[in-house]
Amino acid sequence: MGNRQIVLAERPVGPIDASTTRIVEAPLPHCGPGQALIRVGMLSIDPTIRTWMNDAPGYLAPIALGEVIRSSGAGVVTESNLDRYEVGDVVTGFTNWQEWVLADDQHPFRAVPKGLGLDLATVMNVLGATGVTAYFGLIEVGEFRSGDVVLVSGAAGATGSVVGQIAKARGARKVVGIAGGPAKCLEVVEEYGFDECLDYRESHLARRLHGACPDGVDLYFDNVGGAVLDAALSNIALHGRVVLCGAISQYNAMDRPPGIANTSMLIARRGLMRGFIILDYASRFPEAQRELAAMVANGSLRHREHLVAGLESAPEALNMLFSGANHGKTLVVVDDTVRLG
Amino acid sequence: MGNRQIVLAERPVGPIDASTTRIVEAPLPHCGPGQALIRVGMLSIDPTIRTWMNDAPGYLAPIALGEVIRSSGAGVVTESNLDRYEVGDVVTGFTNWQEWVLADDQHPFRAVPKGLGLDLATVMNVLGATGVTAYFGLIEVGEFRSGDVVLVSGAAGATGSVVGQIAKARGARKVVGIAGGPAKCLEVVEEYGFDECLDYRESHLARRLHGACPDGVDLYFDNVGGAVLDAALSNIALHGRVVLCGAISQYNAMDRPPGIANTSMLIARRGLMRGFIILDYASRFPEAQRELAAMVANGSLRHREHLVAGLESAPEALNMLFSGANHGKTLVVVDDTVRLG
Repeated sequence: MGNRQIVLAERPVGPIDASTTRIVEAPLPHCGPGQALIRVGMLSIDPTIRTWMNDAPGYLAPIALGEVIRSSGAGVVTESNLDRYEVGDVVTGFTNWQEWVLADDQHPFRAVPKGLGLDLATVMNVLGATGVTAYFGLIEVGEFRSGDVVLVSGAAGATGSVVGQIAKARGARKVVGIAGGPAKCLEVVEEYGFDECLDYRESHLARRLHGACPDGVDLYFDNVGGAVLDAALSNIALHGRVVLCGAISQYNAMDRPPGIANTSMLIARRGLMRGFIILDYASRFPEAQRELAAMVANGSLRHREHLVAGLESAPEALNMLFSGANHGKTLVVVDDTVRLG
Repeated sequence: MGNRQIVLAERPVGPIDASTTRIVEAPLPHCGPGQALIRVGMLSIDPTIRTWMNDAPGYLAPIALGEVIRSSGAGVVTESNLDRYEVGDVVTGFTNWQEWVLADDQHPFRAVPKGLGLDLATVMNVLGATGVTAYFGLIEVGEFRSGDVVLVSGAAGATGSVVGQIAKARGARKVVGIAGGPAKCLEVVEEYGFDECLDYRESHLARRLHGACPDGVDLYFDNVGGAVLDAALSNIALHGRVVLCGAISQYNAMDRPPGIANTSMLIARRGLMRGFIILDYASRFPEAQRELAAMVANGSLRHREHLVAGLESAPEALNMLFSGANHGKTLVVVDDTVRLG
């Protein structure tokens, strides 16, 4: 028995394609002293993976050529030489795009608490990086206050949909989404309970934002960057806050993007724009997870997972994030026998 | 005796020219109950005046066509029906571009403390909006900490030169300026004591910034916006802060400027970009003025004023800020008999 892996074959220019990655078969890793062996069950497909494929400085080193694609994921412990893991524990961490991975001090994994009453896909979505990103981005980075007018781009997406629902639950005056196409906009309102949703594919977004938020936007949670960020900046309220979570519109860019023209609105409106990386909040994940789990349990947090079967589908699943072909949090099922007990 | 005024004749497109303003002669204002009459001595020529000439939303209403050009300035009280002003008091506030102005509850002026031992031009520069902007921008908005690597654009300018000197006095690890041309760069180092100064007119600014700040910029104080802001963003350190004070490179722009491409560096570096308007700190000006006056007194704050004679020269003086023809804080002398006692 081996360990199938997807490695970086070639640095992509623009969207990834068949030549970007390659499937290789490595030997099954040996579980040595101070290690635990994990059978990978599910991969979390996140836009940031695309940024790691570039040979450019970032918050983590670029993936080297020939290296397994870096990715969050979940798996089950099958052998353990470490006190903190028992065989059968379901754990999350950087599994990368492969079937087996070793945990040790340099490669820590976190056990999923038992008795949550949720399935693994829900846990990876709402209690995983996606959900905690929404929570800390809104509450800590964006300093959300009850009564805020909140705007969220990528509102039909895994993070954006959770941001809007937390804002509603915590007393936002109005929650407005931005998404691509009428079907997603409808879902944002009907399914996720936003007050309104604007289609960025239609023209005059800045003007329509002014119509939706005539007093300005107190907190803008940006998942996309580019022209949508610019339109939001032009509608920022006095002392408004912009949370830069991601810039998915830029990750596949082949040319230098046009750039943000409205940064000086931050002067006139005494605004603030702040970027963050969720890894910085790792020690505080449990507080977010408690609140998110409670919201799922009481029905106030709707969520949707888009499962894609097979390790070999991971590259295609990543591209779906950029084309908008996914519908909900995108997860690749590597082994569907890995489940929460 | 009348009141010569400069009014807005036509909204400028690009730099202001002869058709932008017009000199008119109004009657000498009558000093009624609850008012004080002020003879204007000096005008503070600030880049923000150009922004008020556009018919665009800003932090103050646009100057109306036919209205006197809004401007900070200083003058002496010549008649007073208000307890808080005595005849002979030198005061600062919105004098606008004219020879006489009335103070009342809606148009407050602030008396310059007696016994400062400084001349009026120095007070208007270092203790005026220019100096307090540098102080609060660096310390409050930028959350300056001892040990920071500080970068300042417009470093030879009135605000920028003060920012760098306060940062040095408070223990910056390194203070780097950006200015236009070798003469200004030399002055920034020799006269204002910056560690280094880069000429933005030479190519590859981002790369040269990396050379000057190899560990990144902890605090960037931006007076210019545009391409210089973009180059600074690409060199921001982990948890770096960008203070948006002004965007002089954009104020005369006739076309949509190219925009800022590197905002996503704020994500990777967990950075923060914040704009501010000094009027918001008005109640706290005295604390800044005390420290700045002490620095002037002990010789640790070098400053330079560029005096331009005559009310009618104000439009030309404003244009000097954009061409870089000024040398130090630009002040228009309306009446040189107005002096501090």
